[in-house]
Order: sequence, then C-alpha cells, then structure tokens
Amino acid sequence: MYKLIKQEGRAKRGELHTVHGVIQTPVFMNVGTAAAIKGAVASEDLEGIKTQVELSNTYHLHVRPGDEVIKKMGGLHKFMAWDKPILTDSGGFQVFSLASLRKIKEEGVYFQSHIDGRKIFMGPEESMRIQSNLASTIAMAFDECPSSKAEREYVQASVERTTRWLERCRAEMNRLNEAEDTINKKQMLFGINQGAIFSDIRIEHAKILSQMELDGYAVGGLAVGESHEEMYYILEETVPYLPADKPTYLMGVGTPANILEGVERGVDFFDCVYPSRNGRHGHLYTNQGKINLFNAKYELDERPIEEGCGCPACRRYSRGYIRHLLKAKEMLGMRLCVLHNLYFYNTMMEEIRDALGEGNFAAYKKKKLEGMAT
Amino acid sequence: MYKLIKQEGRAKRGELHTVHGVIQTPVFMNVGTAAAIKGAVASEDLEGIKTQVELSNTYHLHVRPGDEVIKKMGGLHKFMAWDKPILTDSGGFQVFSLASLRKIKEEGVYFQSHIDGRKIFMGPEESMRIQSNLASTIAMAFDECPSSKAEREYVQASVERTTRWLERCRAEMNRLNEAEDTINKKQMLFGINQGAIFSDIRIEHAKILSQMELDGYAVGGLAVGESHEEMYYILEETVPYLPADKPTYLMGVGTPANILEGVERGVDFFDCVYPSRNGRHGHLYTNQGKINLFNAKYELDERPIEEGCGCPACRRYSRGYIRHLLKAKEMLGMRLCVLHNLYFYNTMMEEIRDALGEGNFAAYKKKKLEGMAT
Ligand SMILES: [Zn+2]
Ligand SMILES: [Zn+2]
Repeated sequence: MYKLIKQEGRAKRGELHTVHGVIQTPVFMNVGTAAAIKGAVASEDLEGIKTQVELSNTYHLHVRPGDEVIKKMGGLHKFMAWDKPILTDSGGFQVFSLASLRKIKEEGVYFQSHIDGRKIFMGPEESMRIQSNLASTIAMAFDECPSSKAEREYVQASVERTTRWLERCRAEMNRLNEAEDTINKKQMLFGINQGAIFSDIRIEHAKILSQMELDGYAVGGLAVGESHEEMYYILEETVPYLPADKPTYLMGVGTPANILEGVERGVDFFDCVYPSRNGRHGHLYTNQGKINLFNAKYELDERPIEEGCGCPACRRYSRGYIRHLLKAKEMLGMRLCVLHNLYFYNTMMEEIRDALGEGNFAAYKKKKLEGMAT
Repeated sequence: MYKLIKQEGRAKRGELHTVHGVIQTPVFMNVGTAAAIKGAVASEDLEGIKTQVELSNTYHLHVRPGDEVIKKMGGLHKFMAWDKPILTDSGGFQVFSLASLRKIKEEGVYFQSHIDGRKIFMGPEESMRIQSNLASTIAMAFDECPSSKAEREYVQASVERTTRWLERCRAEMNRLNEAEDTINKKQMLFGINQGAIFSDIRIEHAKILSQMELDGYAVGGLAVGESHEEMYYILEETVPYLPADKPTYLMGVGTPANILEGVERGVDFFDCVYPSRNGRHGHLYTNQGKINLFNAKYELDERPIEEGCGCPACRRYSRGYIRHLLKAKEMLGMRLCVLHNLYFYNTMMEEIRDALGEGNFAAYKKKKLEGMAT
C-alpha cells in the first residue's frame, strides 16, 4: 500500500508499506545482483549505510545458484540474511543484454545462459515463478526493453506484446500468491512502461497500465543510450499518465543529477550500479563532485573521502590509505569505496525526503547540483 | 617487557607489554601484508575476530606505497587506523623469495623489485630505517633465511653473517629510537635464530643471541620445505637455549596442529598466511577438521560454517549462501571465509592460553588434535 505524504510540483514524498516493512520514498535501491552487493558488502553493513531496499537480479539468481535452491533455503531474505524489502527485476533486461542467441516469440524468449551456454526459455509465467521462488517483496513484470534506436514500428509491436505479457504476469502472480507452498504470499507486482523515445507510444501504454490496478509502475527502457534530455522529456510526458497514488520507479537510473531530475518529474524509486561500480574503480561521489582516488595528489592526503561524511570509510580511514589499498589491489579498498558511494546516494535520498517534507525541494536540488558541479 | 605467567613443561603462558598495549601469549598474529588483511578485512573487523597483533611486511610496504609515505602519514598505526600492536618482518624473507637477481654481500642484499624491476639495496641499517619509518611495535632483525636444503658450510657462513647483521640492526635501532623525528621511540627488536636443520648450528646461534638481551627471539627458516618432524626436532633442540623469560616466535607457522606442537615446545608467537589464504579459497577450519565449501554437498546446507562459532560469518550466514557467493566470485564470500578462519585461529589461541592457565594444556592439545583429525 502506497501512501502519498506530500507533493511539491510533481515531486512526491511517499511511503510504500510492504510485508517486509515500510519504504520511505523517494528511495535509491542498492543493487546486489547475485544476492550480495559487489565489493564485499554484507547484509549487516547495509544498516550502517542507510539501505532501505536491496535489489537482486532474477536472471543471475535463476542461472546461479538457481531459484529452486533459494526457495529450498527459505527464500532470498533468509538466504542473504536481510529482512527488509527486496525488489527483483524480471530477468528480461539481462536476457536482452547478456544472453546470446536469443529469439523473441509471443510465448517468451529463448536464449542461452551467459555462464554455461545451456538453453533457457523465459516468458511471463517463468519470470513470475522464479520471482515467487525468490520470494522478493516486489516482483517486476516480464517485459521487452527495445533499443532506444529501434524503429517506431518495432517499438509499437513490442509494447503491445509487453502489455499482453503483463496480463499473463498478473494472472500467474495471483495464482502463485494463493499457492500453498509460496513463501511470500503478499508479493507485489510492478508493471513496466515501455516505448523507447516515442512519447505518444509511452503515453498510450501508460494509460493502459494505469487501469490495471498494479502495486506500482516503472518506466523502463531509459538510460540505455538516449541523451539525458530525451530521458527527462520522456519522463515529463509519461509520468503524468501514471497514477500519482502509486509508486513510480525509474529503472536503472542513474547519476545524482539524474535522480534529482527524476524526483522533480514524479519518480520515487531508483536503482543503478553506478555507486558500487564506480566505487570499485576508486571513483567517489562527494558534494563537491566526483574524485578519482587513483590520482597521485591523494597519496599523502590524511583527510577522509569527504569531510563530515558518516560512512564507515570516512569515519576511520584517510584518502591516502584507501588510495594505497586500491593501488595494491587490496579488496578492502574497493569495499570502503563502495560503502562510501552507497552511503552518499542513500544520504542524498534522505536529504531529498527531508527537503520534500519541508517543501523546499526546488531550493535543495539547485544547491546540490551547484555543489557537485564545482 | 615480557612476563612469564605460567609454564607447563616447556609451554609458556605469558604477556608482552608494549607501547601499543599488552599481548597475551601464546598468540597468533594476523597477516596483513600490505597494511590490510586480504579478503576485505578492515581494522574495525579485527576486534570482532579477537586479533591481538597485526603483522605487516616491510618489503611490500617499502615497495608500495613506500615507507617514507607511511612515515609522513604518521606511521603504520595511524595509516591503517589500528592502535594495537603491529609486528613488521625485516623484509629479508621476501627479498629471498620474491625479488629477482639478488646478490648477497657482507653489506646486505642487492635485488630488483618484484613490482617494477627497479634496483634496490637492503641491508641491516636499511631494514631498521624502513621499520622505524613504519613505526611498528616490534621490528624483526634483518637476516638471511638459507634453504632447508642448503649445504652445512653455506649455512654456517650465513648464520655468522646473520649474527653480524644483528649487531648492526641493534646499533641502528638504538640510534633511531633516540632520533628526534622517530614516531615510535620504544620500538622493540626481535633477533632471529637460523641454521636450517643443523641442530648444532642452531644451538650455537641460540646461545650467542641469548646474550644480546633482545626484546624477543624468533626461530626463522622453518616451515620452508623440511618435514614437520624435522621442524619439531629443531624446536626441541633449539628453544631450550633461548631465554624463557623472553618471547619466542616461530616464524611463518602454521597449521593448527603445528601451533599446538610449537606451544608445547615453548613457542609463544606465531604467524601464517594459511587462515586468510585458505579462506579465500573456501577452505575452512573447524573443530572437526577442514571443509571445502565448494563441495556440492553444501549447496542446501542451512547450518553455519561451524555450529556454535561466534564469528561474524557464522553468527548470520549459512554454508549454502557462502558457497553460492564463492561460486559467483562475490568478494563477500572470501571476506566471510577469511573472518571465520582468523576467528578460528584466534579462538584456538585463547583456548590454549586458558588451558595453560588451568594447567591442562596437554589434555586440551590431545582433545583438539583428535577432534580435528575426525
Ligand atoms: Zn564517506
Ligand atoms: Zn565462524
């Protein structure tokens, strides 16, 4: 159940009540692809970095260790020892980006595993069954994510099929949520809006989705090659046609600036690999912009990554030490950088929620963007 | 200052008082080669796994980031944010095992860096200066570690040179400990007994070292290819000639069984890469022997690595989950395994100290060895 607490323009401050607790939005979900956040980040670390929602990838977990294994182990929450909300994607995006020899048919997608090459079929029902086995808090509908460069005709047909797939997803999830041996019988379903950069297709799709009374609505197929301006334009055009009294999720986005712009346009869920991936490469977010710790000027720098930051890295270690760890290829260096970056993102979301609560999001956004651009 | 609390046969229960706190012995030092324990283990993790002493490698830190850098950053304790005892080795062992094109002369060793091939000279004075820059709690004397297969004549000459080097180490450390800008003016010096597997050379060397009134005495050049029986024999022959009222350190040893045998023969300091290296490969120590988490039989195992273990891995995660992490090459898997293994070693040392305190080390040792052999 989503509760809209406050609005400032289109920006929403909300709460999503789930069987695993309440999610305060806007929220940034922390990506733990294979049931762990890369960089040796454990579930017990997540509280110290203000994580609300962990996001795992259905495709990866289906391939390894297998969703049946996770079901036998009691579901993803028990498996990774994390009792707060988990969102799983549908597997669709990974099928389209990672798997080889894929063939899309009305029933679903035939493809080969990127790990061992074995043939796999995934359609709406399979995706729902896998996600039900994983027992995540929120499941995503199985969709096709057409390229931002795709022809109008292809996109139109693809979106229509995605709608038919969504109907099948909903029917299968309803069935699964009533099955005896289902771990999470209150699993939620978010539908996904597609349409590449054709705003009229996007709007038409948003209208159809809105009538389906889902638990939440995602905007997919953005941040896949189009410009930031195109992305913001699509959000401006599309989000108004999604229900404001349900959560809106912008998938796979993005930079701190992207998130601020997304919030302004009505988005309240985000996820992205940037903070963890950049952290593993020594690229760190600060309120004065990004810094690259491999830079020689940090060799003797006794300051924390960011003065005043309360993350586990900044509370104890210097830039000079973390730089040494990165250069020596010590895993601890990556771990500390990932912890800082996720803390930075999660703290920014907290600031956004506070600003929305006080009705001064616009001023906060302006100041934050100016600071990071210096 | 070393305080011998209790003896059972030759086994010693002691305390070494240092400028960075008291070390309860017998102790296992946890190896953090490049100023961090491999496996993303941070200084704040060390308390949770009962670490008393961290051991760093002089050669590695000299090459990267450079001991001058660490001195400018306030010494190793400040650099890695660890305020308890640190022991640094002399660099000698790494020079002999890692560096290429080395040439040993009376003044010291000429060799090439294993990182960038640049030419480096290291002799007793250089080793002491580097360790003084690092400002460790305990510095090791610069020695040559002859092969366990070396000819008697070579070993005899090498040991004599090691004694001359030790005199030079002591003179240089005395000078450095009185210098104005030295960070740790109370740095301790341990001398190293050598002699390969020639017990008469070992004994003769031990007698000479004993008269030098050092802070501690190490037995080096063991666990480098000789059999366990040869190692135990050398300890039996040599340790009685080292002062019982000073700490005895068996370098680079070893398995839990090696440590129990070493304690029985009068050793109170140990160090070894086994627990961290084995942990990174999913090989875990338990009181019922070693297990390999890659084994398929652990796929659905909901038990912790070891029932009743209080380590951060066992308190929260299952064998099945950690196995999945290892197979998916998630760093978190290695981290959890390293934490368990170090906790296992450090807890065994605690048990050894308790047993010695209660005067039943012999019974404890027998039971522990029997358990691990099952
Ligand atoms: Zn920080
Ligand atoms: Zn354990």
